[in-house]
Amino acid sequence: MIRLFHVPLSPFCRKVRLSLAEKRLEVELVEERYWEQDGDFLRRNPAGKVPVLKMNGMTMAESNAICEYVEEMHPEPPLLPATPEGRYETRRLVAWFDDKFHTEVTSKLLYERVNKKVMGLGTPNSSNVKAGAKAIKFHLDYMGWLLDQRRWLAGDQMTLADFTAAAHFSCLDYISDVDWNRSEQVKDWYAKIKSRPAFRSLLADHIPSFVPPPHYADLDF
Amino acid sequence: MIRLFHVPLSPFCRKVRLSLAEKRLEVELVEERYWEQDGDFLRRNPAGKVPVLKMNGMTMAESNAICEYVEEMHPEPPLLPATPEGRYETRRLVAWFDDKFHTEVTSKLLYERVNKKVMGLGTPNSSNVKAGAKAIKFHLDYMGWLLDQRRWLAGDQMTLADFTAAAHFSCLDYISDVDWNRSEQVKDWYAKIKSRPAFRSLLADHIPSFVPPPHYADLDF
Repeated sequence: MIRLFHVPLSPFCRKVRLSLAEKRLEVELVEERYWEQDGDFLRRNPAGKVPVLKMNGMTMAESNAICEYVEEMHPEPPLLPATPEGRYETRRLVAWFDDKFHTEVTSKLLYERVNKKVMGLGTPNSSNVKAGAKAIKFHLDYMGWLLDQRRWLAGDQMTLADFTAAAHFSCLDYISDVDWNRSEQVKDWYAKIKSRPAFRSLLADHIPSFVPPPHYADLDF
Repeated sequence: MIRLFHVPLSPFCRKVRLSLAEKRLEVELVEERYWEQDGDFLRRNPAGKVPVLKMNGMTMAESNAICEYVEEMHPEPPLLPATPEGRYETRRLVAWFDDKFHTEVTSKLLYERVNKKVMGLGTPNSSNVKAGAKAIKFHLDYMGWLLDQRRWLAGDQMTLADFTAAAHFSCLDYISDVDWNRSEQVKDWYAKIKSRPAFRSLLADHIPSFVPPPHYADLDF
């Protein structure tokens, strides 16, 4: 049995959930209040964060190391392209979203509005929220530019780059922080990815005291 | 010709330099004052940071995507182990150093003491420096614990995990911020990796107005 220690609105956990689901691997989800730094959890992962995946007798941390491992053990359907150039571009975009987008947008909007409240760390810092709301526009434009030339973010095939971006966007959409009218291309891309069976479990997530907007789980949003 | 746009005291650039050198790929180094956000440079890399590698007609960003590409195109000598479990552990540790260690230590010591001065951003924040000096002890202990059980950080073979860690430590050693007496195992590991031919170019780096300690380039430190 595969077991994933996670929190529902974590883009890193959602990326792993999407990868596992796309490969039709069944997983038991265990919610982990990792910020309480429970001793058992720290033994599982000295980095003290989620996701942590138990699979094939291993206890694994770091979402990218996990996704690469899952890809190697279960190559079908592939989430990395067949060429070195395609794999490079996929990994570049995974890093773009998990590093740059995460710092400039996710941490400024999601962490301020949701994580702070859940962890009891006070109210959102409004200048962070403002900076995040400004930065997401640049990213939507960049994605629109990529999707003008390609069917998916890294090329003509859906890859881990799309799941990585969709993991961030789905968390932000849960709190109504994405302006889907800014880019037709990005809206179409998100509608396509949202309608995949792998996305179902994410759309069913409900976080106490945070009600998603009606369009969150709507495939024809 | 391979060309790397870099800054000398960047752990991410040093990781790429070590990988290329270990695989005996000749590279032309071009120093890039990326924080000045020169238009030409931003066209090469919209993320606006280094390293940027020009190779095989591609212009590549993101150090991990670059290192995975170099590994795929030039598999000998291997910097990723032969087993999926070994590759997982290597990638986990690469992320450990480039993410956790970078946030807790490198950004608190190197960026405060060197980058701020070079970029004209003022003087070091002493509470950051103090936090970094405290956190590096925890990391040295964790590495000592790993190296008690293994020849190299990810197992019995030298991997990209060792180069990633050594890239961070060599930058910190340049500014005398590593207490090599804390762990015999870590000191021995660093002496081993420092004596590899791939390390030579790093030990020859000199940054104006920052003089490294005499032991920096000494193989019997």
